[in-house]
Amino acid sequence: MTANVKPKPAARTAITPTRAENFPEWYQQVIKEADMAENSPVRGCMIIKPYGYAIWENIQREFDKLIKREEVQNAYFPLLIPLSFIAREAEHIDGFAKECAIVTHHRLSKNAKGELAPDPESVLAEPMIIRPTSETIIGESMKNWVQSYRDLPLKLNQWCNVMRWEMRPRIFLRTAEFLWQEGHNAFETQEEAGRDARRMLEVYREFFEGHMAIYGVCGPKTPEERFPGAVETYAIEAIMQDGKALQGGTSHDLGQTFAKSCDIKFLGRDGVQKLAWTTSWGISTRTIGGMIMSHADDDGMIMPPKLAPFHVCLIPILKDDAEKSRILSFCDGLQKRLQEKGLRVQTDKSDDRTPDKIWRTIKRGVPVRVEIGARELDEGKVTFARRDLGKDGKKNVTVDEFVSGIQDVLDQMHADLLARSRKRTQDMIFDVKSVKDIRDFFASDKMGAVKIDYSLIKGSDEFEAVRKEFSLSPRCLPFEDEGRKVIVGKSY
Amino acid sequence: MTANVKPKPAARTAITPTRAENFPEWYQQVIKEADMAENSPVRGCMIIKPYGYAIWENIQREFDKLIKREEVQNAYFPLLIPLSFIAREAEHIDGFAKECAIVTHHRLSKNAKGELAPDPESVLAEPMIIRPTSETIIGESMKNWVQSYRDLPLKLNQWCNVMRWEMRPRIFLRTAEFLWQEGHNAFETQEEAGRDARRMLEVYREFFEGHMAIYGVCGPKTPEERFPGAVETYAIEAIMQDGKALQGGTSHDLGQTFAKSCDIKFLGRDGVQKLAWTTSWGISTRTIGGMIMSHADDDGMIMPPKLAPFHVCLIPILKDDAEKSRILSFCDGLQKRLQEKGLRVQTDKSDDRTPDKIWRTIKRGVPVRVEIGARELDEGKVTFARRDLGKDGKKNVTVDEFVSGIQDVLDQMHADLLARSRKRTQDMIFDVKSVKDIRDFFASDKMGAVKIDYSLIKGSDEFEAVRKEFSLSPRCLPFEDEGRKVIVGKSY
Repeated sequence: MTANVKPKPAARTAITPTRAENFPEWYQQVIKEADMAENSPVRGCMIIKPYGYAIWENIQREFDKLIKREEVQNAYFPLLIPLSFIAREAEHIDGFAKECAIVTHHRLSKNAKGELAPDPESVLAEPMIIRPTSETIIGESMKNWVQSYRDLPLKLNQWCNVMRWEMRPRIFLRTAEFLWQEGHNAFETQEEAGRDARRMLEVYREFFEGHMAIYGVCGPKTPEERFPGAVETYAIEAIMQDGKALQGGTSHDLGQTFAKSCDIKFLGRDGVQKLAWTTSWGISTRTIGGMIMSHADDDGMIMPPKLAPFHVCLIPILKDDAEKSRILSFCDGLQKRLQEKGLRVQTDKSDDRTPDKIWRTIKRGVPVRVEIGARELDEGKVTFARRDLGKDGKKNVTVDEFVSGIQDVLDQMHADLLARSRKRTQDMIFDVKSVKDIRDFFASDKMGAVKIDYSLIKGSDEFEAVRKEFSLSPRCLPFEDEGRKVIVGKSY
Repeated sequence: MTANVKPKPAARTAITPTRAENFPEWYQQVIKEADMAENSPVRGCMIIKPYGYAIWENIQREFDKLIKREEVQNAYFPLLIPLSFIAREAEHIDGFAKECAIVTHHRLSKNAKGELAPDPESVLAEPMIIRPTSETIIGESMKNWVQSYRDLPLKLNQWCNVMRWEMRPRIFLRTAEFLWQEGHNAFETQEEAGRDARRMLEVYREFFEGHMAIYGVCGPKTPEERFPGAVETYAIEAIMQDGKALQGGTSHDLGQTFAKSCDIKFLGRDGVQKLAWTTSWGISTRTIGGMIMSHADDDGMIMPPKLAPFHVCLIPILKDDAEKSRILSFCDGLQKRLQEKGLRVQTDKSDDRTPDKIWRTIKRGVPVRVEIGARELDEGKVTFARRDLGKDGKKNVTVDEFVSGIQDVLDQMHADLLARSRKRTQDMIFDVKSVKDIRDFFASDKMGAVKIDYSLIKGSDEFEAVRKEFSLSPRCLPFEDEGRKVIVGKSY
């Protein structure tokens, strides 16, 4: 080898490191480069920046339509939950409410050193915890609101913040404070509650596929993985690009657990007092992390079109001042035409260099990028690129063709992202026949999850050892296997 | 007087007591009968029920459009603020952050008695407070995000919950936890910040008049009434039906107070490091209390049409089963036609008696009520009533006339509510010429506020005594009087 033989240059990517090099660090860098969120000075709490929050606003608006279609009503319940409420439901508290933010005082005052501190005279008679979830406090209202079978079903939802003290926070995926919707429904019969829990999971599946362009495997959790207090927990599990599973929405059939601890009783059609049957269901800002790990590539974010802050970014290519106003005014016109079609459009009017504008648009994952220079104007054409198709995806079409075809382009991109997510999930779930196979799989450098007969791991000490060794968990029992099989894998 | 002379019966009202009898209690009853909100088991915190929350959803959606028109971006910042952040801004903390919810522990565990309690080993190194407002934590981000004049203006807003420990809570008006939007803008120059603070007040005025149908007097606060840390606070003050003032939106010119304490610096156009100039501005769920006290009457709520959960309620008059399906199917058709015009419509399909349905609709303040019985169907007509016009407002028109005219009816109702609010505010602000006049006014049984030359009360010990005696406060210095006059009154 001689000195003038240069090593083959690595393909240049906008994100360093690449997914293959270091997936967790790649994830952080995608978020940073797309300017979606950042860590805050408050341990474990994130700051959702405007470009990231716009995704959540779109999730809220679109999912809220589905909630309302299901005849759920939004309401708002207190942030703080008295300790005694939490303590009522023993299984619930054992399950997860222990790591939480506890409010003990209600006033600051200056201490002997002249420093501001909790006033010792303001200790609360009863400590309060910041809601980690609201079954106990909403149950208290349901107790009062439900008197007769005529008051049922009662379907409530709130969009709010919750807190769970996280020891290993990770932006979007695992934060002490996060935003979510929590639905809480109450029914007359066990059958209705069971049907509702499965129904709301289907609504999540509809949203994941229809808006997030994420395919997930749906089914009940194993008993050990259920929400504390639930008789059945259903989940949608999607496989990320590194082969780990991400639990999307969850929907819980709570049986009469909370109806008992909250005393939610009603006078039945037969004149007899009965306990109600309840469900709860939620998705959170962690789904944004799922969108990143499902769609983004080594050049940054790829926004699923239905939830993208902007569908289209117009990039004026301004080589000299003479043409600037002509090009910008063309962009204004095009932006307006696209907005009239209901699209969210941004024009990058900054003074940055064209390549910088293009790379920013790529890193931010705007579904369609349009480059508009003097030549395009002269020809009456535009050059556009679908973010997910890379360099090969550029097309040069007339302005009218672009405007009339843009919705199809976005729809096709959505379909392609979803198909890719489906294929990955299917390709990365490997059928295995024994616990030893599970061990071999995770001891290898293969990425993905395994599917095995549930009977082979249920109560198996051998499985338990493998599970611990590789930090695995049973993800769900896919509906299509009717409870016979279980997916096991690493997860977020 | 003989035994058979009956006393003249009092006019029957749906709400007991009436406004004249007991305004504060009337207020609570209006909320209860309209099923908007209720107190929660958590002291000072309210539960916003679906019908009340729908108003807040409408406020959010409509006001958010105005925010975005002003090129403000939504984002989300942490719920918890480290004590040291609050302590930084002395004036701010002296002003109001003392009564707050303080988080001191992050784990529950069983104590010696076997009871769940804050784990002594989970004491936080630094206590956190639940945000009473977010200047200090958002300022910390602005410090990082603003590097150059090119990063300005930076206009951020968040829709969130905040807490201030209230000793005398009152539903919607004064609650420990409430929902609001808080805008935080940063600018290059003092002039821009000053202009922005006034601009955002104008946006509130636009929203109050255009959506809430509430007229308010706008102007700066006196120095004593400013937001702690502000160099100028602008407010919109509306007069409620009992003559008390309600502060609607406030907009603060914060000068460099928070830029200093948060160290928000940028490299200016001249290459010199400078401190930014900031503003903040907010409206909260307390404005719903203002809508109630401004519009409701002795029969209950009157919803301003632009924010009403439902614009129209259809009431099928079902006398016998034979006609039930014919009437209900007519209602379905009419509901659909109205919804296609963008209206929010509800049909009361309950089995309740017709008068009960009608009274419920009245108490809930639905702007337009339509009664539909067999006779109406035979005639091809509907009878409708505008909620604010009482019994005299019933009209009988053809279905087509109703559908084509409904938007005008709602617009006229909005205009009338606003005109009534404007007239009341103007009629209830009395010009006075001395502090003695102020005393005489509030010692009488007159309802309302007074307006006086600001120079006559500024620094006056006599005024201070009267202010304390009647629990008065200077409300604002109306723009139209150019700072010469001040409005003084009781307030919520």
